[in-house]
Amino acid sequence: MIKELTVDLGARSYPIYIGEGILENIDSYFEKHGISKRSALLIVTDEHVAKKHLEPVIRKLERAGFKTASHIVASGEKSKSLAVLEEVITSCLKAGLDRNSSVIALGGGVVGDLAGFAAASYMRGIRFIQIPTTILAHDSSVGGKVAVNHPLAKNIIGAFHQPEMVLYDTATLRTLPDRDVRAGLSEMIKHGLIWDAEFTSWCEDNAEKLIGLDPEALQYGLYKGCSVKAAVVSQDERENDLRAILNLGHTIGHALEAVAGYNELLHGEAISIGMVGAAKLSVRLGNPEHIYTTTKRIFKKFGLPVAVPAHMDTDEIMKAMMYDKKFKEGKMVFIVPTDIGKVEINKNVSAEWVRDIVDQLKQED
Amino acid sequence: MIKELTVDLGARSYPIYIGEGILENIDSYFEKHGISKRSALLIVTDEHVAKKHLEPVIRKLERAGFKTASHIVASGEKSKSLAVLEEVITSCLKAGLDRNSSVIALGGGVVGDLAGFAAASYMRGIRFIQIPTTILAHDSSVGGKVAVNHPLAKNIIGAFHQPEMVLYDTATLRTLPDRDVRAGLSEMIKHGLIWDAEFTSWCEDNAEKLIGLDPEALQYGLYKGCSVKAAVVSQDERENDLRAILNLGHTIGHALEAVAGYNELLHGEAISIGMVGAAKLSVRLGNPEHIYTTTKRIFKKFGLPVAVPAHMDTDEIMKAMMYDKKFKEGKMVFIVPTDIGKVEINKNVSAEWVRDIVDQLKQED
Ligand SMILES: NC(=O)c1ccc[n+]([C@@H]2O[C@H](COP(=O)([O-])OP(=O)(O)OC[C@H]3O[C@@H](n4cnc5c(N)ncnc54)[C@H](O)[C@@H]3O)[C@@H](O)[C@H]2O)c1
Ligand SMILES: NC(=O)c1ccc[n+]([C@@H]2O[C@H](COP(=O)([O-])OP(=O)(O)OC[C@H]3O[C@@H](n4cnc5c(N)ncnc54)[C@H](O)[C@@H]3O)[C@@H](O)[C@H]2O)c1
Ligand SMILES: [Zn+2]
Ligand SMILES: [Zn+2]
Repeated sequence: MIKELTVDLGARSYPIYIGEGILENIDSYFEKHGISKRSALLIVTDEHVAKKHLEPVIRKLERAGFKTASHIVASGEKSKSLAVLEEVITSCLKAGLDRNSSVIALGGGVVGDLAGFAAASYMRGIRFIQIPTTILAHDSSVGGKVAVNHPLAKNIIGAFHQPEMVLYDTATLRTLPDRDVRAGLSEMIKHGLIWDAEFTSWCEDNAEKLIGLDPEALQYGLYKGCSVKAAVVSQDERENDLRAILNLGHTIGHALEAVAGYNELLHGEAISIGMVGAAKLSVRLGNPEHIYTTTKRIFKKFGLPVAVPAHMDTDEIMKAMMYDKKFKEGKMVFIVPTDIGKVEINKNVSAEWVRDIVDQLKQED
Repeated sequence: MIKELTVDLGARSYPIYIGEGILENIDSYFEKHGISKRSALLIVTDEHVAKKHLEPVIRKLERAGFKTASHIVASGEKSKSLAVLEEVITSCLKAGLDRNSSVIALGGGVVGDLAGFAAASYMRGIRFIQIPTTILAHDSSVGGKVAVNHPLAKNIIGAFHQPEMVLYDTATLRTLPDRDVRAGLSEMIKHGLIWDAEFTSWCEDNAEKLIGLDPEALQYGLYKGCSVKAAVVSQDERENDLRAILNLGHTIGHALEAVAGYNELLHGEAISIGMVGAAKLSVRLGNPEHIYTTTKRIFKKFGLPVAVPAHMDTDEIMKAMMYDKKFKEGKMVFIVPTDIGKVEINKNVSAEWVRDIVDQLKQED
């Protein structure tokens, strides 16, 4: 049984299909959504995903009469660059993509962000289809944020470009390394923490099943995670206000990623530490202690890190935060939990307090 | 007396101010439109324009309390690349541009397209102000099309991103080389030919004044040119149908530019030849002969070329056309005049006919 969810964005609304084996019927989803068989499609993927999942997708589509070409990038964050974007556009041109064509992202958040920006900018915007193959991508494939990195800043060059549809086949997740599984679940837990206390306890209760990739638990968790993200994005597509709550744990998290050189910590690991930090800040601001203890307990249950690695320099972490987009005209904006399942956007957090928290996060265990 | 015109695009509507000396009051236009004095501005310009017009603009803005930084690119089409875009984004980051900042294009179409795409993609879109300094830019600064080139195709990587306002100071045009003046007037004549027979004869009657940069003639001509473009764009922002008429002369024109290597022919020169070609095609399709004779007579009066340079290979020109975006699922779309001031979008023009026309265009005099 496939679960279906609609991201409600007026003329740009689109469906997310989640379930086991969806890609076995990829051609019928494409047909149902009027994807052109006369205009070429470009599948963008990375080396790891290509090895496991590209061939059956091409075979299905070609047999059904779709014209496909593919472009394989190196795995990892470094493929989110303007140089790689130019190579993807070269493939669009060589495959003859026209204004009725679609770009398909088959992969995790890296491929989704890169291929999405290619679709947003090729001929000033053509269709885009997301086929997420990581758990983290339940986050990145909803909301239409696409981007590449600049050597000085992550995700700074991009667009808002909503996909035509998202095809989430939980079967693809079975080839994902365990560390990426856990890191992806960190964003799922985040969606509970910002919006839904009940879903948060469900996550805690089902930690083993989720880590073990139980199909039913996975489908439910991804469905709920996507639903929260979709609800937030529907109310604030362009991040004028509400959408900022999705950044829970990200102010500290991004800084940790930057200082760690994008190697030592995966994104999901960095924000798990960041969310524990946000919970500590919350308690310092006068909210009940259990916010912190619960948050920490959950992440530990998922085997996710809760402490800033001791060797990292607090000054450097604070400097990295200064480059982050979450500053608006000098003031620091911080997403602070006020309970489990609830957060507020606090625009008056002093950098000094955050510094203290970062220091304390080195002592967590 | 400043002329004002509104480009009507709902929530994205914006004004165009046209007249002599506008930049002397640039600060008050910025204040009137609520441009932030707390967030940094980045002025993007090119070497030629910087030499003549950058310093007074910076001085005015700084005196009024705006925080400005500037980024100067090499003059010419080669600056419309992803590599140069990355450098502009570097300047955005170093100057500390935030989500309330604006990018300002001070220059011709090259700077407008490049800076506009930087504004469209930096932080997924910040404000953008156009200060056109060429005549051709009366075209490029209206309609929100922004882009950079790919080595294999022009303008293929871009966005639709409408400016906050356009400040068109006719005084800046006085430093423009004569050849660029005439080439720019070619697009002005195009706006007459597609929409307004009366404006077309006004252009012909005022050729000397326009070429001589008479302020009053210039103001009127630019105002009318911008008005036609604005009217078309208001009805079809994303080029689903009507907007295609702006491509009169461009199918052949772009191919000539590509084969000439972007050096031998300026854009305005290439499309002047292309418009004569479209008029010839029109006559061949059964429309009255005077369409061709009038079109040709006007361009000759402006000293613009009407013949394909004899050394250019027709095969190569046709091949270049194949790469052009004006093909939709195999069929050739051609903008054909049906009278002076009227055109139709003909979707069934055979490549053979176009080939004949290109060949014949080598004999024009
Ligand atoms: N656009 C958004 O809203 C948004 C939100 C969150 C994160 N992101 C972005 O997402 C990216 C991180 O996403 P990610 O964690 O999915 O990273 P990723 O795409 O790099 O995937 C992680 C690793 O898993 C491999 N992989 C992916 N699917 C696999 C599969 N099914 N089997 C085996 N290996 C597989 C990849 O090759 C890679 O090595 C970051 O660049 C981040 O900025 C974007
Ligand atoms: N976005 C659109 O809708 C649109 C429409 C038409 C053309 N365009 C683009 O516009 C570009 C051509 O525009 P352009 O002809 O303005 O080219 P340009 O910007 O290269 O300017 C032409 C030359 O004049 C110089 N110059 C500009 N202003 C000057 C001044 N006031 N004094 C002295 N020198 C000056 C420039 O340095 C350059 O050498 C092309 O890249 C084309 O693709 C875009
Ligand atoms: Zn995240
Ligand atoms: Zn043009």
